[in-house]
Amino acid sequence: MSSTKGNAVIGQSGGPTSVINQSLVGVIQEVQKSDHINQLLGARFGVRGIVNEDFVQLKDAPADLLERVANTPAAALGSTRDKPDHAYCEKIFKVFLKNDVRYFFYIGGNDSADTARIVADLAKKEGHELQVFHIPKTIDNDLRVHDHTPGYGSAAKFVAAAIMGDNYDNASLPGIKVDVIMGRHAGFLTAASVLARQHDEDGPHLIYVPEAPLSEDKFLSDVERVYKQHGRCLIAASEGISKPDGKSWAEDMAGEIDRDSHGNIQLSGTGALGDYLAELIKRELATPGGKKLRVRADTFGYLQRSFPGFTSETDAREARMVGVEAVKASRQAGATGSIAMKRISNEPYKIETFVTPLNTVARETRHMDASYIENGNNISEAFRQYAAPLVGKLPMVGTLDSLQSK
Amino acid sequence: MSSTKGNAVIGQSGGPTSVINQSLVGVIQEVQKSDHINQLLGARFGVRGIVNEDFVQLKDAPADLLERVANTPAAALGSTRDKPDHAYCEKIFKVFLKNDVRYFFYIGGNDSADTARIVADLAKKEGHELQVFHIPKTIDNDLRVHDHTPGYGSAAKFVAAAIMGDNYDNASLPGIKVDVIMGRHAGFLTAASVLARQHDEDGPHLIYVPEAPLSEDKFLSDVERVYKQHGRCLIAASEGISKPDGKSWAEDMAGEIDRDSHGNIQLSGTGALGDYLAELIKRELATPGGKKLRVRADTFGYLQRSFPGFTSETDAREARMVGVEAVKASRQAGATGSIAMKRISNEPYKIETFVTPLNTVARETRHMDASYIENGNNISEAFRQYAAPLVGKLPMVGTLDSLQSK
Repeated sequence: MSSTKGNAVIGQSGGPTSVINQSLVGVIQEVQKSDHINQLLGARFGVRGIVNEDFVQLKDAPADLLERVANTPAAALGSTRDKPDHAYCEKIFKVFLKNDVRYFFYIGGNDSADTARIVADLAKKEGHELQVFHIPKTIDNDLRVHDHTPGYGSAAKFVAAAIMGDNYDNASLPGIKVDVIMGRHAGFLTAASVLARQHDEDGPHLIYVPEAPLSEDKFLSDVERVYKQHGRCLIAASEGISKPDGKSWAEDMAGEIDRDSHGNIQLSGTGALGDYLAELIKRELATPGGKKLRVRADTFGYLQRSFPGFTSETDAREARMVGVEAVKASRQAGATGSIAMKRISNEPYKIETFVTPLNTVARETRHMDASYIENGNNISEAFRQYAAPLVGKLPMVGTLDSLQSK
Repeated sequence: MSSTKGNAVIGQSGGPTSVINQSLVGVIQEVQKSDHINQLLGARFGVRGIVNEDFVQLKDAPADLLERVANTPAAALGSTRDKPDHAYCEKIFKVFLKNDVRYFFYIGGNDSADTARIVADLAKKEGHELQVFHIPKTIDNDLRVHDHTPGYGSAAKFVAAAIMGDNYDNASLPGIKVDVIMGRHAGFLTAASVLARQHDEDGPHLIYVPEAPLSEDKFLSDVERVYKQHGRCLIAASEGISKPDGKSWAEDMAGEIDRDSHGNIQLSGTGALGDYLAELIKRELATPGGKKLRVRADTFGYLQRSFPGFTSETDAREARMVGVEAVKASRQAGATGSIAMKRISNEPYKIETFVTPLNTVARETRHMDASYIENGNNISEAFRQYAAPLVGKLPMVGTLDSLQSK
């Protein structure tokens, strides 16, 4: 059965990625080839643009403009942090009825999948034919069912390269360095730092993810051991690292400072956890030979999700593809769901897409598999194999270690 | 007159750059073609490696290894923060005598030029024929006489791209964003953020460099004005921004907190200034319509100097070239100095190198010309023209602004 003719709405939601516009452009280009969609309305700033009927006409966008937009990080339509409740979704649905919207493409994470689900249910209840597609996007890589999500590969490539560079920086001026990486609940992005390691002595020497609870004692003894062994230590830590009691370090840290009636100026800041870890090391670790430890911290911040010109080719291609596949799927009457990828083979890397019901993706998030974590401070070979094809080629580097000393 | 036959020492010093090894490789490759240098000894960890006679033999390094090393950020020989005094330089000189060292190549900033100068003077006094070459390197771009320094173009490219990406991030989720960029005394690197601006509305909307003193009042009124105009504000601030009384914001901030007997955990941290600026905005700026302002800060940190795979082609080429030119210059008996670049023309971009006496580069640093700064919060077209050829191509990006609204 062929699908109903009508208009389509597309929106982008949540934190940006460097390839979220690839998915947008994939949808636009496929709609341009399609008869079943009359107008393609881009909602400005996600669901907010829908309820305000703030739309831009996308169907006639010129090809050269689209290629430039595809190459541009962050949501070209604008994004939103709004998480629509049922009442909000009813407003969305009303706008859809008014504008003869029969197709809704929503690019985002698990919250967006949930919005899509609620709107789809409303339409069904009201007997309005509406096909809803969630198009995955998140640097956190934390969607259930999906093998991985567009946006992750590029952020992971950025993190791996950044840690690779910082490893050489740390080797040339030895000391202890803490790098804090995005990921409040899932450690996939931090884990990608393992790809930076080319030789045994290379950092990151310690990798901490939220899924592996970490006490201060273990952290300090890990750092001390590595420092003794290598004369330096490069640490990759998720912003969401957790304590054995289940609280996050960030929460714990804020609580401690509050009790001391110290100002919390920096604690709400992005650099707070890194600086806290650096201070902890300086305060608690024995300084070998009375020499002051050189300890520094960086927090990679938004660059991880929006740095241009350094995307993973695989990620960019797949992000475009899930957009295209959503429109293709919409040609089948009644079809609705999230466009997911399944890995058919790892070497050579090969995936295929399928449509999974919205409720299998909505709300709950996915975490790192236990097999990906080693000793609570390292990442396994199994994870490296999982992540490597998503990231693609990293810069070719080398050392002088093979040369003779005088 | 042809130069004395003997051995050569090469070292790397100070903060890493992503092309410092290009200069090292330039020296090695040119020495491989040279008769006047017998052994080329690479000092491990700069001057420290010299006094400890911790050398690696570089003359026979294979070509493919050298290309990989050239592509690797940070000092492949290891670097040091040691600033040798006269006594330290005497030790260096003794090692040179002992090892028949007739050529000393030192890659670094103005402190390294000063070390080179002292050692050269010692040799002259002692009647030991020694030719000393300072090979420029600093992301700060703050060497006198030099039109610009290797390392700057790549760091500037990273900053420009990062700000470009963050501008789109900020446009898609509007708010106020502060990005803190390296440069304690010179604003060249922060100023490069202006290259990210493609359209009138693009950020960075405000650019603050150490050379333009900034009061809290001016800062806040700048931010308020931009936010009212654009509904968002992207700020690029040097870590070394200064107050009208001549102190840096960082010093001032630390003082204030100490007086309040608040903890200074984060104040020594890298994220401190950004978080402080963000808190200041949150605290002092009127929130339009009672809505909470969305204010965030990132501190770009070491990535600016050591991110791999994203160097400026011009910078990489020139960094290699100054290494080659140092060895070429050493063929002339008695020649000693710093290898500098002079801009012959800007369009097309063309430079030539010359040897400038070490004392013209040593110690004092260079600051941004007043003509490069506008209103204390912006960077001029003159600077853009100065910096653009050093950075080279930036990612091609685009927006949907030209499309029709519905």
